[in-house]
Amino acid sequence: MSSPKQQQDSVSSVAEAMAPESWSKVSCPCCVSSEVEPLVLIHLAENVESSTKQWIMSMISAPHKAGGAHLLVHPGEDASWGRLVVAAPRCTLLRATEELGLCKADKEGNMVLFSFHDRNNFNNINDMQKFLTLAERQYIVQHELESMRAVKDQRIPGIPGDKGILKSRQNILQKLQKAGVIQDVFPLCDEKKLNALGKDWYLKKSLWGQPLESIHAYFGGSIAFYFSFLDFYTWALVPPAVLGVFITFFLPGAPPPDIPKADNSTPGPGSSDASDDLDLSVSSHMVQAVFSMIWSTVFMELWKRRSAALSYHWGTLTLTEQFQEPRPGFQGEMGINPVTGRREPLFPDWKRQMRVGLVSVPVVGLFLGLVVLGMVGFYFCESTMSSIHKASGSIITATLSYLPSVMHIVYTNMLGNAYRTVALKLTEWENHREESAHQNHHTTKVLVFTFFNNFAVLFHIAIFKQDLQLLRKRLSSLLILSQVVNQLTEVLVPFVVDRFYGSSQKELKEDDPAADHMQAEGSLPPFPGLFLEYIELLVQFGYLSLFSCVYPLTAVLLLINNITEIRGDAYKICRLFRKPFSPPEASIGVWQTAFEVLAFFSVMSNCWLLFLAPRIKAFTQDSGLNPSVVLIFTVIVEHVLIVVKMILAFVIPDEPEWVQIKKQQIEYRTILALKEQKVKRSKTAELPRS
Amino acid sequence: MSSPKQQQDSVSSVAEAMAPESWSKVSCPCCVSSEVEPLVLIHLAENVESSTKQWIMSMISAPHKAGGAHLLVHPGEDASWGRLVVAAPRCTLLRATEELGLCKADKEGNMVLFSFHDRNNFNNINDMQKFLTLAERQYIVQHELESMRAVKDQRIPGIPGDKGILKSRQNILQKLQKAGVIQDVFPLCDEKKLNALGKDWYLKKSLWGQPLESIHAYFGGSIAFYFSFLDFYTWALVPPAVLGVFITFFLPGAPPPDIPKADNSTPGPGSSDASDDLDLSVSSHMVQAVFSMIWSTVFMELWKRRSAALSYHWGTLTLTEQFQEPRPGFQGEMGINPVTGRREPLFPDWKRQMRVGLVSVPVVGLFLGLVVLGMVGFYFCESTMSSIHKASGSIITATLSYLPSVMHIVYTNMLGNAYRTVALKLTEWENHREESAHQNHHTTKVLVFTFFNNFAVLFHIAIFKQDLQLLRKRLSSLLILSQVVNQLTEVLVPFVVDRFYGSSQKELKEDDPAADHMQAEGSLPPFPGLFLEYIELLVQFGYLSLFSCVYPLTAVLLLINNITEIRGDAYKICRLFRKPFSPPEASIGVWQTAFEVLAFFSVMSNCWLLFLAPRIKAFTQDSGLNPSVVLIFTVIVEHVLIVVKMILAFVIPDEPEWVQIKKQQIEYRTILALKEQKVKRSKTAELPRS
Repeated sequence: MSSPKQQQDSVSSVAEAMAPESWSKVSCPCCVSSEVEPLVLIHLAENVESSTKQWIMSMISAPHKAGGAHLLVHPGEDASWGRLVVAAPRCTLLRATEELGLCKADKEGNMVLFSFHDRNNFNNINDMQKFLTLAERQYIVQHELESMRAVKDQRIPGIPGDKGILKSRQNILQKLQKAGVIQDVFPLCDEKKLNALGKDWYLKKSLWGQPLESIHAYFGGSIAFYFSFLDFYTWALVPPAVLGVFITFFLPGAPPPDIPKADNSTPGPGSSDASDDLDLSVSSHMVQAVFSMIWSTVFMELWKRRSAALSYHWGTLTLTEQFQEPRPGFQGEMGINPVTGRREPLFPDWKRQMRVGLVSVPVVGLFLGLVVLGMVGFYFCESTMSSIHKASGSIITATLSYLPSVMHIVYTNMLGNAYRTVALKLTEWENHREESAHQNHHTTKVLVFTFFNNFAVLFHIAIFKQDLQLLRKRLSSLLILSQVVNQLTEVLVPFVVDRFYGSSQKELKEDDPAADHMQAEGSLPPFPGLFLEYIELLVQFGYLSLFSCVYPLTAVLLLINNITEIRGDAYKICRLFRKPFSPPEASIGVWQTAFEVLAFFSVMSNCWLLFLAPRIKAFTQDSGLNPSVVLIFTVIVEHVLIVVKMILAFVIPDEPEWVQIKKQQIEYRTILALKEQKVKRSKTAELPRS
Repeated sequence: MSSPKQQQDSVSSVAEAMAPESWSKVSCPCCVSSEVEPLVLIHLAENVESSTKQWIMSMISAPHKAGGAHLLVHPGEDASWGRLVVAAPRCTLLRATEELGLCKADKEGNMVLFSFHDRNNFNNINDMQKFLTLAERQYIVQHELESMRAVKDQRIPGIPGDKGILKSRQNILQKLQKAGVIQDVFPLCDEKKLNALGKDWYLKKSLWGQPLESIHAYFGGSIAFYFSFLDFYTWALVPPAVLGVFITFFLPGAPPPDIPKADNSTPGPGSSDASDDLDLSVSSHMVQAVFSMIWSTVFMELWKRRSAALSYHWGTLTLTEQFQEPRPGFQGEMGINPVTGRREPLFPDWKRQMRVGLVSVPVVGLFLGLVVLGMVGFYFCESTMSSIHKASGSIITATLSYLPSVMHIVYTNMLGNAYRTVALKLTEWENHREESAHQNHHTTKVLVFTFFNNFAVLFHIAIFKQDLQLLRKRLSSLLILSQVVNQLTEVLVPFVVDRFYGSSQKELKEDDPAADHMQAEGSLPPFPGLFLEYIELLVQFGYLSLFSCVYPLTAVLLLINNITEIRGDAYKICRLFRKPFSPPEASIGVWQTAFEVLAFFSVMSNCWLLFLAPRIKAFTQDSGLNPSVVLIFTVIVEHVLIVVKMILAFVIPDEPEWVQIKKQQIEYRTILALKEQKVKRSKTAELPRS
C-alpha cells in the first residue's frame, strides 16, 4: 500500500524524470542556467491535438509583448503526454516581484519595496530559491499564466469552431480552460520540504508553537496567515478558559457545568431558594460578561498588531494589487485605465455599486427572510405536532413529531446549497476588478448567511423563549458535537477515503515511477480553500463571545478544540490535498472585520443575556427592584461598555511603532524618488542625449 | 476719522514706501528680479541694538545650510526703525512648495505633487504671484522663519547674558521671541485684493454662495475650509428647517412654538385630554427624530466628499507634515530621525502616550467632575433656597434666591478659564511633533469640556427632571440668546472698539503715510483663530441634532443665524483683525470628528427623549401598553437606528470617485518614480561617471 507521501508530484522527482534539453529556451542571457526548477504542472485534456499543445507551449514561453507569459515550459517525456511542466526564468520572477509590490530584504536587512532595476542592492538576488519562497515562485508562475492575453485576433490551432477563436486582449488561460483544453493548473510539491515541515508541525511533541516561517515559505501568504491567526487565537483563549474554570468549579453558587440546578425556564419566586449564593452568582456572571467583552476587543487589537508585524516580515506591506491587471474573470468595455494608462477592460464603479445595492443586498435579504420563515415554520409545526401528540398519544403521532425537525433540516440544507450557488454567481456578476475585492464580497455574503443560520435559533431561544437553561444545553451540545463532527469530516473521512482510493489507483502503475508521480496527481483532491476553516473559527468565536456568560466553559472546550484543530488542519493541508496556490497577503482581510463585528455584537448580547438571566431576575425580585429600573440600568451598562470598547480599540494602535516607522520610511523613499527622478527627466529633456 | 480700511499694512503701500535697493541680495541668479513683493512684517522691540537687527537680517537672508531662512529682508526707512520687511525669492518659494508636499497644476491642468526639479512642467512657474496664492507665499515665509536653527553654539550680538546664548540646533525665531527682541511676526495685507474680496463676500446682495477660491487665495487653507464648511452647513440646514416649519405650523396636534400646552412635567392621566391629536403628534415627533438622525449622517458624509474635492482643488491631498522638521515648540533629545535620517530632537511615542493617558486624561476627567459638582451644588443650593424662601417669604430670601445662580455662573467661568490654561499647558507638555497633532489634542481637550459645560444641564433636565417643557423653553431661549449675544460680541463690539481706538491713534500720525501704515498695524488686534467659531457651530449643531425632536424650529433659527454669521465672520476677518497666517490644510481635521461624534450621540439622545416625551407616555397609557414593553421597543429602535446610521456612513464613499482616481494616479506616479530612479542609480553605480 502506498503512503500518502508518494501521491503528489514533487519538484525533485519531476526534475529527474525530464530531459533538461527539452526545456524551452530563455530569451535573455542573464537567465541562462543549467538548473531549471519545475514549479507548476498544467494538466491537458486527453484528446488535445499536438498542434494545440505546441501553440500553448509557444505562448507560455513567448515574451510579454507578444501576449505570452515569458516562462519556461517542458513537454514531458513525449509530445503526446498530456501534461506541461512550467518553470520561471530569473527575469520573470524578479519583474513579477516588482509588479506585485513585494518588499524584500536589502543589503542592510531592511525590508524595502523591491525594484528590478535596483536588484543588486537586495540580498540573495542571484539565488532565486533563497530570494523568493517556493510559494511565491509558484504564485508568480500562476500569475503570469493568468495574465496571458492575446495581442491580436487569432485562431488557436487544432481547436475547431467558435471555441478556437481568440479575440484581441482576451484572456488566453481562461479561454483554454473554457474550451476544455486545459483541465487543471497546480503547483508541484516538494517532498523533502514537506517532510521537514511536517516534523516541525503536526508531528511536533510540544503543544504550542508552529513553524510559521516554514509554512509561509512552503504554502504561501494566505495559508500562513490562517495558521498564524489560529495560533494567536489559541493562545488568546487561555485567559477566558482559566476564568471559566475558576467560575465553574471554584466559585460557590455558580452554575454547575452539566447538572443544571432546579431553576426552571420561568422562575417563579419559589425557585430562588438558594438566595445565599445569588449574590456571588450574579457577580460572577457580570465578571464573565465584562471580561469577555474586554477580552474580545483586546484580542482583536493585538491580532492587528501581530498581523502588521507578520506582513512586514513577509514583505507584503506595500502590495499594489490596484495597479495590476484586473482579475481574469473581470468583464468590461476596452478603454484606457485612468491611473496606469494601460489598455484594459473598464467597468464603472457606480454600476457595480448599483448591482450590489439594488440586486445583491435584496437577494441576500430574501434568503435571510427564508431562514427566518423556516424557523418560524419549524416552531409552529412542532408546537402543533406536540399538541396533537399530547391529545392522541399514538405511535404514529410520536413518529410524526420528528417530522418538523427532519423537514427543517432538509429545508435548511437545500437553502444553504442554493444560497452558496447564488452568492458566487452574484459576486461574479458584480464584476470586481481586484481578486481581493471579489473574495471579500463573496465571503461577506456567505458570512452573513452563516451567522444567521447558526445564531438565529440561539437568539430565538435567548430572547423570545427566554429559556437560558435550554440555551446552555444547546450551546454545550453544539460545541461538543460540532467539534467531534468537524474533526471527523475534516480529517478522518478524507484520510480514510484517500487511503482506499489512493491505493486502488497505485496498484495499476507501480512499475513506472515518473508517470506514477504525474498521474498520481489526480488522486489527491484539490484543496477546498480556507473558507470553511475560517467559518468554523468564527462560529466558535461567536459561541464564545456572544453567549459566554451563559456557559462559562466554552473557552475551555474551544481551547481543546483548537489544539487538535491546528494539528488536524496541518496534517490535512500537507497530506490529504493537492498543494494550493496561495497569493501573498497583508492580513486575513474580511475575516478580521467579521471577528470585529462579532466582538461588537457580543457587548449587546451579553448585556441582554444578563438582563434575562433567571438568577438576576430572582435577585432583583428579592431586592424589590422595579424591573424598569433594572432595564434602564442594563441599557446604561450596555452603552458604557460599548463606549469603553470603542475607546480601547482606539487607544491600542493597530500597528506596532516599529512597523509604522518602516512604513513611513518606505513612503519617504518613494517621495524622495519622485523628486529625484524628475531631476533626471527634466535634465535629459533640457540637454537631449548629451 | 479713518476708516478701518486704512489701518492694516498693505503690500502695495509698503512696497511704495521702501527703497528697492535696500533689499538684501539673493544668492542665486535665477531669483534676481526687479520687483520684490513684501510679504511679512517683523515687529522688533523698541530698544533693540542695531547690531542685533543686523544679525537678524543676516540670518534671515542666509542660506539654509548656514541655518538661515534664505529670504529677502528690508530694514525699512532707516536702520533705527523697529521693523523688518521680509520677502521671498523664487527658489525659496518653490523649494518650500516641494517640502510642504503641495500639489500644483501641471501643463495638462492636473494637480500633481510639485517637484522642484520638474518645475518646468508646471503652469505659471515663472510668475510666483500666480503660481502660489498670497496666503501660501506668506505661510512659506513664516514656515522658513520658524525653521531657522543655529548651526553651531554662538552668541546673538547685542543681547547680554543668557538670553543671548544660542545653542546648536536651537530654534532662532523662538529664542528671539523669548528674549523679547522680536515682538510679532505677521503677514502684510493687500488692500486691493481685500476690497475686491469684500465686494464679493460680505457686501454681496445674494444670500447664497461665497467666493471660496478668492478666500482661499487671500486667507489660506484653514480659513477657506472654515468658510466652506459654514457654507455647506448652511445649505444643509434647509431640509430640516423646512420640516421643522411644516411640523410646527401645518401639522395638527404638534407642539406650538412658544405657547406650551397644558401638559405638566409629570403628566397625569388627565393631561391627555387632547387625545385626538396624540397620534399625529407622536408620529411627527418620530419623523423628526428619524429624519434628524439620517440628515446628520448624510450631511457629514457629503461634507467629507466636498472636503476631499476642495482638498484636491487646493492641492493639499498629499501634505507631508510628518516628513518635515518638528514644530518649533517640540522638545527632545538630539538624535537621528529614523524615517528621514535628519538630525533633529526626538521624543519617544510611548512617553507621549503615557503623558496623555496617565496625566492629561485624568486631569480632564477631574475638571469634568468639577463641572458636575458645580451643577449638583447649584441644584442643591437652589432647592434649599427656594424652600427657605417659601417658608419665610421675605425680600432678603427673595434676593438670596438669586445667589446660587450667580455663584454657579462665577464658578463656571472661573473653571472655564482655569481649564483653558491647563489644557494648553498639558498639550504643550505632551510634546507633539507635528503642529496638526498638537492642534488636534488641544482642540479635543477644550471640546470635551465645552460639550460637558453646554449639554450637561440640558441632559440633566431631560433625563433626571424629565421635564421636556422646561427643556424646550431652555433650548429656545439658549438658541435665540446665544445668537444675539454672539453676533454682538463677535462683530459689533470689536467694530465699535476699533472705531474708537483706531481713530484716537490715527490722529497722531496723519502726516506720515508710510510710517502711518507701519505703525497702524499695532492698532488691529491679532486674529483670535477659528476655535471659537467652530465651537459655536458645534454647540448649535448639538442643539439641533441632540434635541431636535423637542423643539422643531431649531433648524430655522440656526439657518437664520448662519446666514448672518457668514457675513459677520467675513466682515470681521477682513476688517476688524490683522490678517493671520493660515497653513495649507487637507480638511477641517478634528472638527469633523467632533461633528461625527455629536451626530452619533444624537441617535441615542433622540430615542431617549422620545421615550421620555409626555405625549408618548400618555399615548402608551391610553393604549394600555406596559412601560417595559415601550422601553424595550425604544432600545430596539435605538439599536436599529445606530446600525442604519453605520451602514449609511459606510455606503456613502468618503471621497468622490474622481478624487480617488487622482489620488491613485499620484500614488502610481510615485511608485513608478521609485522604480525608474533606481535604474539611474544602479546604472551610474555600475558605470561610474561614463
